[in-house]
Amino acid sequence: MNWTVREESFDKNQITTNGNKYMTGNGYMGYRGTLEEFGKEQLSAVTLAGLYDRAGEKWREPVNAPNGLFTVISCNGQPLSVLDTEPVSHIQELDFRSAIHRRETVYRTPEGGTVTVTAERFASMDNLHLLLSKLTVSSTIDCRIDIETGIDGEVWDINGPHLFEKKEYAEGDVLISSAVSGELNVPVAVAEIADFGFGEQQIVDGLAIRKLLLDAKAGETYEWHKYVSVYTGLDGGKAPVDNAVEAVQAAAKLGYDELLAAHRKRWEDRWVGSDVIIEGDDEAQMALRYSIYQLLIIAPTESEKVSIPARGLSGQVYKGAVFWDTEMFMLPFFLHSDPSTARNLMMYRIHTLDGARRKAAEYGFLGAFYAWESQDTGDDACTLFNVNDVFTGRPMRTYFRDKQVHISADVVHGIWQYVQFTGDDSLLVDGGAEVIWECARFFYSYAFYNPVKKRYEILDVTGPDEYHERVNNNAFTNALVKESLEISLRTAELLKEKYPAEFEKLTAQFTDGPFLTEIGSMLESFYVPQPDEETLVIEQFDRYHTLEEVTLADLKSRVLNKNEYWGGGNGLATTTKILKQADVVLMMNLFKHSFSKEVKKANWEFYEPRTEHGSSLSPCIYALVAADIGSPDWGYPYFMRTATVDLTGESKQYVGDLYIGGTHPAANGGAWMAAVLGFAGVHFDGDTVHIKPSLPQKWEAVELPVVLRGGTYTLRISRGEVTITAAAGNSSALNFVVDGAEPQLCQPGVQLKLQTAGATV
Amino acid sequence: MNWTVREESFDKNQITTNGNKYMTGNGYMGYRGTLEEFGKEQLSAVTLAGLYDRAGEKWREPVNAPNGLFTVISCNGQPLSVLDTEPVSHIQELDFRSAIHRRETVYRTPEGGTVTVTAERFASMDNLHLLLSKLTVSSTIDCRIDIETGIDGEVWDINGPHLFEKKEYAEGDVLISSAVSGELNVPVAVAEIADFGFGEQQIVDGLAIRKLLLDAKAGETYEWHKYVSVYTGLDGGKAPVDNAVEAVQAAAKLGYDELLAAHRKRWEDRWVGSDVIIEGDDEAQMALRYSIYQLLIIAPTESEKVSIPARGLSGQVYKGAVFWDTEMFMLPFFLHSDPSTARNLMMYRIHTLDGARRKAAEYGFLGAFYAWESQDTGDDACTLFNVNDVFTGRPMRTYFRDKQVHISADVVHGIWQYVQFTGDDSLLVDGGAEVIWECARFFYSYAFYNPVKKRYEILDVTGPDEYHERVNNNAFTNALVKESLEISLRTAELLKEKYPAEFEKLTAQFTDGPFLTEIGSMLESFYVPQPDEETLVIEQFDRYHTLEEVTLADLKSRVLNKNEYWGGGNGLATTTKILKQADVVLMMNLFKHSFSKEVKKANWEFYEPRTEHGSSLSPCIYALVAADIGSPDWGYPYFMRTATVDLTGESKQYVGDLYIGGTHPAANGGAWMAAVLGFAGVHFDGDTVHIKPSLPQKWEAVELPVVLRGGTYTLRISRGEVTITAAAGNSSALNFVVDGAEPQLCQPGVQLKLQTAGATV
Repeated sequence: MNWTVREESFDKNQITTNGNKYMTGNGYMGYRGTLEEFGKEQLSAVTLAGLYDRAGEKWREPVNAPNGLFTVISCNGQPLSVLDTEPVSHIQELDFRSAIHRRETVYRTPEGGTVTVTAERFASMDNLHLLLSKLTVSSTIDCRIDIETGIDGEVWDINGPHLFEKKEYAEGDVLISSAVSGELNVPVAVAEIADFGFGEQQIVDGLAIRKLLLDAKAGETYEWHKYVSVYTGLDGGKAPVDNAVEAVQAAAKLGYDELLAAHRKRWEDRWVGSDVIIEGDDEAQMALRYSIYQLLIIAPTESEKVSIPARGLSGQVYKGAVFWDTEMFMLPFFLHSDPSTARNLMMYRIHTLDGARRKAAEYGFLGAFYAWESQDTGDDACTLFNVNDVFTGRPMRTYFRDKQVHISADVVHGIWQYVQFTGDDSLLVDGGAEVIWECARFFYSYAFYNPVKKRYEILDVTGPDEYHERVNNNAFTNALVKESLEISLRTAELLKEKYPAEFEKLTAQFTDGPFLTEIGSMLESFYVPQPDEETLVIEQFDRYHTLEEVTLADLKSRVLNKNEYWGGGNGLATTTKILKQADVVLMMNLFKHSFSKEVKKANWEFYEPRTEHGSSLSPCIYALVAADIGSPDWGYPYFMRTATVDLTGESKQYVGDLYIGGTHPAANGGAWMAAVLGFAGVHFDGDTVHIKPSLPQKWEAVELPVVLRGGTYTLRISRGEVTITAAAGNSSALNFVVDGAEPQLCQPGVQLKLQTAGATV
Repeated sequence: MNWTVREESFDKNQITTNGNKYMTGNGYMGYRGTLEEFGKEQLSAVTLAGLYDRAGEKWREPVNAPNGLFTVISCNGQPLSVLDTEPVSHIQELDFRSAIHRRETVYRTPEGGTVTVTAERFASMDNLHLLLSKLTVSSTIDCRIDIETGIDGEVWDINGPHLFEKKEYAEGDVLISSAVSGELNVPVAVAEIADFGFGEQQIVDGLAIRKLLLDAKAGETYEWHKYVSVYTGLDGGKAPVDNAVEAVQAAAKLGYDELLAAHRKRWEDRWVGSDVIIEGDDEAQMALRYSIYQLLIIAPTESEKVSIPARGLSGQVYKGAVFWDTEMFMLPFFLHSDPSTARNLMMYRIHTLDGARRKAAEYGFLGAFYAWESQDTGDDACTLFNVNDVFTGRPMRTYFRDKQVHISADVVHGIWQYVQFTGDDSLLVDGGAEVIWECARFFYSYAFYNPVKKRYEILDVTGPDEYHERVNNNAFTNALVKESLEISLRTAELLKEKYPAEFEKLTAQFTDGPFLTEIGSMLESFYVPQPDEETLVIEQFDRYHTLEEVTLADLKSRVLNKNEYWGGGNGLATTTKILKQADVVLMMNLFKHSFSKEVKKANWEFYEPRTEHGSSLSPCIYALVAADIGSPDWGYPYFMRTATVDLTGESKQYVGDLYIGGTHPAANGGAWMAAVLGFAGVHFDGDTVHIKPSLPQKWEAVELPVVLRGGTYTLRISRGEVTITAAAGNSSALNFVVDGAEPQLCQPGVQLKLQTAGATV
């Protein structure tokens, strides 16, 4: 099977796209898929997770570290760079099984020979502070080779500069680049060692760059390694410079091969826990694995202080901020495959509770109103003017920040899902309960009672469909708010019974109310829009049906400027029924057991032609619900579109002069959801695993490992049969239901083979 | 004193402005101040009150009738028209004491002589169907004069055509033009008679035009009259053509002079009941009288089926629709001077209740939601896209129609004011109570209960300041809604006691509720924003204080297109503290006895520099409140700006290609309010007349007649003394309070002289 992506020539126009496509990373940092000789103009970047900085009045964004893998090789004084010279041949390759990036470029020399440069690199999954690289150069003729390598202190920034008091120097054979961030004075240090066994080395004064002169012999291959370590003041322990120097020295001592082996081992383990095998569809297989890879390189396996930004670690786009994408589109993958990382993601929300409290207070509400764009503190990085009007150049008032209140419900949903999937209710005691209660209190204070209709309503919100701002009773939002209120009561019951002392302690702050009594009473008459009796369609929000009916094609024909924003005050879609992305249909997916197949079908069919899919979060949801209603082939194109978004690069790269490219972790997670929760039809309700296969025509079977309530299982799901293999070490049994049949208990070490409803006996 | 406005030369660029400035009319029709030879290109128009028509998908607007006063005179074959020939001299004049328009134009003939044309005209106040005119022509040399006169069927329309099945013909000496409106098939007929005592007449075939040939002798003056009558199918009785023919024949029989005398007599009477004398300030005197004139020519004295449109009868601008302007800016003048017309204005709202009920139902509310732009049925003529975006040419979603809910409270306020001023509670039985209750029920269903703050709030509205749409708890709106709820309870008490049978009958429709019990309970915890404890400023709406602080000058410097709309989704003012017009300060004026002087002053000083006065409804309110807080000289410039708006013509005439000019009845009424309720300080609370003079420096005294609770009084208010003269025929006494002193009862036939607080004894 194919585990690699590869370019076989160099195309200048693809530099930015390939920077995303060939990303490596390890959750601590992301390393864009640029080439060794590239600099900030080519968007080379070492993006650090969780370290944010604000320069002046500009948008706050993550800090990019100096690039310790920078290397330029020259032959007889001519730099060998794809930017300057058309190479004879060029290969760029990513082995995403082991997360190793390789390039091999052959240049012609003016003297008639050829010089071949190769480089292999990885961001160690075994030691997250290390970037490692092996390079070679060889020539078909004798020539002079200059190698300039070290740490490139010229950092790409969108809203920088962020690094100050820069120092670049050498200590013995270690190059060091150190600086502090501007806003919070957090030190950042990069250290590098290069182990040349040839040539003459010289350190450039005042830079963390070394130059090596080599009289290369024809036919000989010269190989060396680079060891780079990155530390910041957020890592704790010693000063970052000391940490970095020690780490790089230890790495050099271990040697490249041993580091590579440890890295490979880690990746093998991660794939064992997360690989999804699709039988019968190589294209889908490759795209899905690539999507999983993208999630694995940005997952915060070792930190509970960071989560996954909307563009992963592929740069500073969208302020490096964490959106609802994490809970709603990425979390399911981690819940099924890596509960410990899932816990970290949820702990991030617990650590940022105070920011959410500040935001609620800012708007005059109780409890916690989570940031639409969350960074280190949980304060909202989203501005009130988040888009520029292309017609006037003026900042446009948008309501992402103040009206997308569903974010607090998304967080509650995520935490509760975590507890259901893992049974680890310690998360609740560790702060999860407080988050849940504060979010519920926020919604209590956001809701209003309608005295005529005698019900509580949620007014003036923006749902997932951001083209319709400030609407009343958005069905998705109301359904999630209701769930939040319910979870707050269930959490209280759980803690009261299991952790009575903690319950008393944690709830002391809420004695003045409103709290559980009031929330319970609100729930008794809480309004969630219901399917129309005739059409079965759920109106997306109050008066949606009065908006202009227009086809997507007609609406597109009204566009005057290709970068114009369709939402906002005067947006083209605002006054029409055209949606940016799945909204009611997303609700159908989240609460799939609350709606009949007929209702789901009616809503899919109603909203699908009216959806622009202006967000990469949209197509996967249509794939999921298509599978759920037994029409997987309707969903298949949406699945493929989602799973290939970072392979094709066919997404918006710029809005006006603003770069918005990068990877799409929510789509990556969405591809996994479509395959596993959609087509394979896996649904764990916290108690029983329901499996309802709905495979696209090409697919013969889907096989994957899952961890549920601490037990490990392998599922193989085909059209006719579902095979469940429980690990022998599981501590308890779990019930499985296939196609709504009787539950079957799967004991540790046992393999069950269950027929599907569509099985041909 | 000056009772005329006059031009002493002809300026082509002033044609449109003068069309407004020299308006005549009588409430049944308006006749623009154009010249006899003008046609639709010069915006000649006979605008009919209350007859609306919709052409295709265009905006519905009033019908303009064919112009029966059309006349072109030629000398030796050369038309004498200011449009073609520069006249030797030209005078256009309006005597607004008698509502008579005159022009005198002298032309040079190629032969070296001069020809003088004069015309005098009026829209009879004695017989509202008549337009009458006296013309003369004289020449200094013998010449051939052609007179072409009759009914010009080429009608100016903004969104026409509206007249179909046009017939133009003669019956004997009567010219007739008849047609039917397109939408409702209402017949419209104009008849004309001209009483030439000279020359040879000929009727043009197929037109309602006669031609007269005259060999004019040098030095001789030829005089004739035109009698024109206008009827529509809304007038009842016979067919409009028959009505018109009969009326014009009767008029011709009576003769011009007698008709003029009757007209003059009516005007004398009207001025007796409404003139306000300002001693010491001729400029203000003239402007105020002119403002009153503008109100008198459009007042529906004989119909309770029409009200006063926002541009009066000066054309089809703003769809000829009735706005809140009537209740809030014009009604006070009529309440004090002409209770019978005030009653008609309120009856119009009663007749359009069903339209308001339909609008409430359309939006899912109970009761009556009055039209923002009301025409004949009370259905809303306001569209959801009322302004075009100058940058894209696209219609812009505005919220005038759906969010300016205060209109229903304005109507309630008006009706209650009428009952207070007149004591005529029959209006309540005649439908007023139903309007009040339905509006209260509308607000009951519009309000929401905030469970944390434990109060009812009014969310998502647009207040008077239209630059800030969709705000919560607009102080003005909440205060007025609260008043509506209170009035609904008081109305019930009044009817229950005085008209118990009618009460039972009228309230039967509300037995299923919500009604008085629920409204009473809402009132117990109804929220109205209060002054800040430190600054005393009332926040215009929730979170107004978080908007951008910018000076008006700075905001103006951001304008990219002079016609761009400052409100709407992306409007320049939308995200700033700049207001279009008085909002909190208007509330201070409406509820002046609920706020201390300190609060009024603090709010005036806070909001005044932040107000654009983008509406002609704004300056008068700042004048009123300035007077109220004892700073009349702050208010004086605002008063003058308001009182001269139709004299200077310094108001917007076009937005994009849309003509929005016309007269400004709300400003005319606002000028009266500023002078009488502001500077003279007259305030009748339904029981006692409070007088608190606050005269501008120049003013020595203000004298005016008022009718209160059926009694007639003359008030003379100077700095030191207030003189009250009660008519002998008054049926009861009334209490007067000057500057907060002890009430003094003024018996019929008595004159009281009361010292002011500032009197120098």
